Amino acid sequence: MPTLTQMIERRRRLLGPAYRLFYDEPVHFVRGDGVWLYDADGKRYLDAYNNVASVGHSHPRVVEAISRQAATLNTHTRYLHETVLDYTERVLATFPGEPGHAMWTCTGSEANDLAYRIACNYTGGTGLIVTNFAYHGVTMAISQASPSLGQYVRRGPHVRTVRAPDTYRDAPGNIGAALAAAVRDAAADMRAAGIRPAALLVDTVLSSDGVHTHPAGFLKPAVAAIREEGGIFIADEVQAGLGRTGDAMWGFMRHGVLPDIVSTSKPMGNGHPLAGIVAKPELLERFGRESRYFNTFGGNPVSAAAGLAVLDVVRDEQLVDNAQWVGAYLRSKLLALKDRHAVVGDVRGAGFFIGVELVLDRAGKSPATREASRVVNALRERQVLCSTTGEHANTLKIRPPLVFGPEHADLLVSTLDDVLHTLMT
Amino acid sequence: MPTLTQMIERRRRLLGPAYRLFYDEPVHFVRGDGVWLYDADGKRYLDAYNNVASVGHSHPRVVEAISRQAATLNTHTRYLHETVLDYTERVLATFPGEPGHAMWTCTGSEANDLAYRIACNYTGGTGLIVTNFAYHGVTMAISQASPSLGQYVRRGPHVRTVRAPDTYRDAPGNIGAALAAAVRDAAADMRAAGIRPAALLVDTVLSSDGVHTHPAGFLKPAVAAIREEGGIFIADEVQAGLGRTGDAMWGFMRHGVLPDIVSTSKPMGNGHPLAGIVAKPELLERFGRESRYFNTFGGNPVSAAAGLAVLDVVRDEQLVDNAQWVGAYLRSKLLALKDRHAVVGDVRGAGFFIGVELVLDRAGKSPATREASRVVNALRERQVLCSTTGEHANTLKIRPPLVFGPEHADLLVSTLDDVLHTLMT
Repeated sequence: MPTLTQMIERRRRLLGPAYRLFYDEPVHFVRGDGVWLYDADGKRYLDAYNNVASVGHSHPRVVEAISRQAATLNTHTRYLHETVLDYTERVLATFPGEPGHAMWTCTGSEANDLAYRIACNYTGGTGLIVTNFAYHGVTMAISQASPSLGQYVRRGPHVRTVRAPDTYRDAPGNIGAALAAAVRDAAADMRAAGIRPAALLVDTVLSSDGVHTHPAGFLKPAVAAIREEGGIFIADEVQAGLGRTGDAMWGFMRHGVLPDIVSTSKPMGNGHPLAGIVAKPELLERFGRESRYFNTFGGNPVSAAAGLAVLDVVRDEQLVDNAQWVGAYLRSKLLALKDRHAVVGDVRGAGFFIGVELVLDRAGKSPATREASRVVNALRERQVLCSTTGEHANTLKIRPPLVFGPEHADLLVSTLDDVLHTLMT
Repeated sequence: MPTLTQMIERRRRLLGPAYRLFYDEPVHFVRGDGVWLYDADGKRYLDAYNNVASVGHSHPRVVEAISRQAATLNTHTRYLHETVLDYTERVLATFPGEPGHAMWTCTGSEANDLAYRIACNYTGGTGLIVTNFAYHGVTMAISQASPSLGQYVRRGPHVRTVRAPDTYRDAPGNIGAALAAAVRDAAADMRAAGIRPAALLVDTVLSSDGVHTHPAGFLKPAVAAIREEGGIFIADEVQAGLGRTGDAMWGFMRHGVLPDIVSTSKPMGNGHPLAGIVAKPELLERFGRESRYFNTFGGNPVSAAAGLAVLDVVRDEQLVDNAQWVGAYLRSKLLALKDRHAVVGDVRGAGFFIGVELVLDRAGKSPATREASRVVNALRERQVLCSTTGEHANTLKIRPPLVFGPEHADLLVSTLDDVLHTLMT
């Protein structure tokens, strides 16, 4: 077996310098099962981070669906196939309002890129409004609207950013109005540069902006604002979607809004590359007439079978309910850490999307960036996986598979308690 | 079982108007095996079209690799995993020249989009040169450089097109020089508009331009020209790659050029969403420093396992050789149809990438567009699958799985002979 150092060097040689690894001491996993990941030495790690393995690592029903369909047929959407239609029907049935159309891609980047193309076609504009530390993907168009990629990935000339709500620092009553005002300002600023607004694109849990979920409903005035400006609202559900917030199947539902387009990806295929959009039919009328859409692998029978199995497991194992009640239990236990550790400034989130913001002082709320990094690395040493998020990377991002149980919540919190005690005293 | 009409209506309702089906009477496939696809009535069709199922539909070794790895672990490239490194090493070993770096995506659109981002970062330009009926993908940036998507998908202001070589009509000795001159003109035209050239992006078999492969080497002067203009050469191997041309593992090798970036996708995972780029290390130095790259599903352990299995099968079943000799046999038999059918104007291609151009008259070489469509639909009635390509859609596109044998070539040609006899007399 190669050493970690050898693997890292081999990786750098083969994949080049654009790839990043998690942790000061990266982990080499060889097996996964439910909420557990096993490294090459057989040590097991509690996964409190990976939403992609939404119904748990290597879930046998998903594996079986993929294996069976791969052994039978894997083609594309230029031939008729029932599985993609069955899957689409099941997905659309989870959406409120009039039935939309779904279009299938392989990644969230592709889904957001397609949503943006449709927004431009529908509105005749190109202007795109995102939050100031948003991440929406890595295509050329979408990377230009993903400020969290850093200063060197240039913001597109048609992109404007609005300050994301900061539910820890802002007055709760003002969040919705402030965001809507920022959207109107951004639209005015584009118009002054001759750019017509096409869309407001928002991750409905504001994950890369630091996880901001409450008070639910704060997106509503901003959605009204973009529509008044002639643009549409695209809800990025790549992170929030598929029941993760516990109180709803999709993050936008918590806010009482009906998006024009919804994009989704990460949790849909439990790791199998499956992503797509759901759009109001009127948005696709002209787009569909003027532009064929074909994604070679998107919506293929194996992806659709994987997606169906995930939906079956979410239903049969009641994972949305699980996210709600175990999520609430986990947050309540995390909240109790505030009494024991001054560095814990805020515990927030919905269901299994939780942010624990670390601060240097509770009065000034200044970000404890270095401390957050040390905590994440210390948790990894104690075989618990999470990460940080937010512009200052000082918020612990806790986003476990939906099968996370109360015993896992206990282990996570006791380990975190221990780590905070060791590091901060 | 629903009728075809019911399925088509259901599909329209669920997926909307942007999706297109093959054939006047679409086909509903339920099973695949090697070069055969089976419809819902149990009728089998000879697949002379699908390069995605590169080693044959439902190849047991690929299915086994996917099933085994999906049951073990499916995560992402932020943790260490050996399979993606083993796969990358195997892929890079098929390339000539100094070892490059590979970066993994899920689709060819993403691969070309990433190649373009890197080209812009490396050159400081944005100008992109493509052939006049190119297809490179569906992201915003790449759809704007894919004229074959039709007049309504607007060409980007930074995109210039050059006339693709037409190996049926142009003097062979002049093709390379003409393409190079067109590249220089396009670069001058961009500069006049204040746009700096970033890249020449060419599908190395010019599939959507009508399949143009000979004389091999004609890309060489154009590659030299774009470099003189300060841009790089991106070889789009999504269609030509992985041994399909029989005489080389990658289409660019036939032309004696060394691209700066190569993109690949369709055949790599035998239907599993697996795609990526290979780039010269110097192109990634700044890009990698300035921009992290993370594709959630790209290069995951299951995709890498699928890719490894495909490479194993290509090697063990000697499929590159098979493409070369069965391809040559198939072309010779197709060529013989010229003596029997005046509509067959030209038979061309390399290995298993073959174009049969239909013309109304051999002297004027005017495109027989309607006839080509009737032939493709008649072949489908007789359970043989192919399609058309080229700006006038008058070239039969024959691009079978690499396991196509001489007996399949015989069946394809005798059916085509029969169809041409019935339709054209």
